[in-house]
Amino acid sequence: MTKPIKKLAVLGSTGSIGRQVLDIVQTFPERFTVTALAGGSDAGLLSNQLRQFKPKFAYFAGNVDMPATVKSLSMEEIAAEPEIDMVVVATSGRAGLNPTLAAIRAGKQIALANKEVLVMAGAIVMAEAQAKHIQILPIDSEHSAIFQCLKGEPNEIDKIILTASGGPFIDYSESMMANVSVDEALKHPTWKMGKKVTIDSATLMNKGLEAIEAGWLFSMPLDRIEVTIHRQSIVHSLVEFVDGSVKAQLSMPDMRVAIQYALSYPERLANSSFPRLELAKTKSLTFERIDYSSFPCLKLAINAGKSGGTYPAVLCAADEVVVDLFLQKRVRFTQIAEIVEKTLSLHHSTDKPTLADIMQADKWARDTALSILSKVS
Amino acid sequence: MTKPIKKLAVLGSTGSIGRQVLDIVQTFPERFTVTALAGGSDAGLLSNQLRQFKPKFAYFAGNVDMPATVKSLSMEEIAAEPEIDMVVVATSGRAGLNPTLAAIRAGKQIALANKEVLVMAGAIVMAEAQAKHIQILPIDSEHSAIFQCLKGEPNEIDKIILTASGGPFIDYSESMMANVSVDEALKHPTWKMGKKVTIDSATLMNKGLEAIEAGWLFSMPLDRIEVTIHRQSIVHSLVEFVDGSVKAQLSMPDMRVAIQYALSYPERLANSSFPRLELAKTKSLTFERIDYSSFPCLKLAINAGKSGGTYPAVLCAADEVVVDLFLQKRVRFTQIAEIVEKTLSLHHSTDKPTLADIMQADKWARDTALSILSKVS
Repeated sequence: MTKPIKKLAVLGSTGSIGRQVLDIVQTFPERFTVTALAGGSDAGLLSNQLRQFKPKFAYFAGNVDMPATVKSLSMEEIAAEPEIDMVVVATSGRAGLNPTLAAIRAGKQIALANKEVLVMAGAIVMAEAQAKHIQILPIDSEHSAIFQCLKGEPNEIDKIILTASGGPFIDYSESMMANVSVDEALKHPTWKMGKKVTIDSATLMNKGLEAIEAGWLFSMPLDRIEVTIHRQSIVHSLVEFVDGSVKAQLSMPDMRVAIQYALSYPERLANSSFPRLELAKTKSLTFERIDYSSFPCLKLAINAGKSGGTYPAVLCAADEVVVDLFLQKRVRFTQIAEIVEKTLSLHHSTDKPTLADIMQADKWARDTALSILSKVS
Repeated sequence: MTKPIKKLAVLGSTGSIGRQVLDIVQTFPERFTVTALAGGSDAGLLSNQLRQFKPKFAYFAGNVDMPATVKSLSMEEIAAEPEIDMVVVATSGRAGLNPTLAAIRAGKQIALANKEVLVMAGAIVMAEAQAKHIQILPIDSEHSAIFQCLKGEPNEIDKIILTASGGPFIDYSESMMANVSVDEALKHPTWKMGKKVTIDSATLMNKGLEAIEAGWLFSMPLDRIEVTIHRQSIVHSLVEFVDGSVKAQLSMPDMRVAIQYALSYPERLANSSFPRLELAKTKSLTFERIDYSSFPCLKLAINAGKSGGTYPAVLCAADEVVVDLFLQKRVRFTQIAEIVEKTLSLHHSTDKPTLADIMQADKWARDTALSILSKVS
């Protein structure tokens, strides 16, 4: 029995996750086809992807020569296109929020890599998804791990344990941390990812955003989500059940395992191009407590998640601005946490925010972070 | 909504597993009740259990004063008693085989700790269980781990990875192995178990029996069941799926986690008396290849499992006899493998054996192992 081919919209197709999504589509042409592509910044790569995958619909943020066969649409229009089965949200920052909501409203399957969507607007997105009976399939390796561990038993959870490699600076002292360069921060020990998420991994802001996202995806309060340092990035996360039994998902650190699982869910597809885990060749698997004082961004994120309201949106927006400035070498590494913290401290949060409240908080946070920078530098 | 109370028959109630089953029954008196007890050798303990749990039915292999309220039945009769919901087979050796079949035929839920049942007669037991749509719930920690990892996705498995602590002699040279004492062999580094299984754990025969049992429980050929040394006994086993994703189940080494899971399945029950896994306090988790030459029993078992027929029954029977002789200090540790191997080599296996063939092979193997001993000693 042949399964129907799944028609994908890949939002953020020129980014690291987007490119790996297309890699999997190419491996299983009988299972997946690309019906829409959307890219944000790399016009040359998007042009190539358009030629190669021949989607019916496309979006590009800037100017790009669309082939005559391709209809140009906004990301929200793409997300709602009747022909499309699954929307892969592999954009970054706030860009994914409105397309995700449009996809939910149109009843699409959703594979989500853009963690800011849930961090900024988790309550709204999850409520709409529930109303439409749509399960959001996580692409992040940690959330995919939890999702896999919960298959067949989504309840009776005591806690979720997110693993964190710790990034390149896990053993740095505070004074060493102050002087790290952009190049050092971009050298992640175990994962190959985009620049923004690599910097967020070095500050552990990324783990904080993941904790907030996990809270929404798995209906888990943040005080039952633990973070543990696991340098090898083999155990992608764990779930502890009420009876003390713990389930973990492991694989070699290769994002494609999680990406493919979201695409093929609830099935698994044999893919011989994935590296296999050989336990006996693996160095020992270690787990360590986190020193929160060395990674203030993690604490900021978890506190913002616990406070709720528009704090998480402010966290995301401020972090996006400041990481960009760090990549431009305009702020030091340790200033990332300082400016985000200062921005959060100046914010007046709105309870049960609407989408408009969230967008307003986002804009306020970007302006505020920049104005803080102009004062400190 | 209160759940109906589950009425248990505990076969082998005076053994290590049986006692832990009763411990869990005491923790959840609103969920479990003991309707039948069967013990093999410890009359004093069985008498205490009869007074404490007041079952309606009981069996004892020797002489015991049955209270007037207790009806004495055979284990097969107990297994078929209409009142009973679940039969816990915590006997050892061949003793569990007929009661398990009787329980299957009577349509009972089965929690199985007696691995010889499936090793000896896996084809017969699994065929009868399938015909009656009965799922056999494993109690062994390794099989429970696999069973938990497969919850919600029992197919699409590439391989099963059984973990083995390696027992007390994992770092012994061949010459050291020849001189180990009974006391040394009974000192298992991580698990508290009965004597027979502790010796089988020291020879790794136990892991071979587990591999054969896993093959039957999870319909997996033995060449897709791997054994890896994991000294910490925290990861109880792993499953690799076709997409390279691996799931593992972890807990502190405490048999009650697996026992309770089988009793409460498909639910999990919160039990605060179980030790919780604290990853950061755990020493690193390591995995090593097995040196099969140091543990000939493991290879003997796997080969017997692959050969099929009555070989696995002969393996079990010979091992039972020889381990007993080792505990009596009548054979040396390394003679366990030698005598089992010799017995297997003398055996003429029957293909697709009936229960009678299996029982005959069992008897033949016991006699043969003893006669080999009388020649070598």
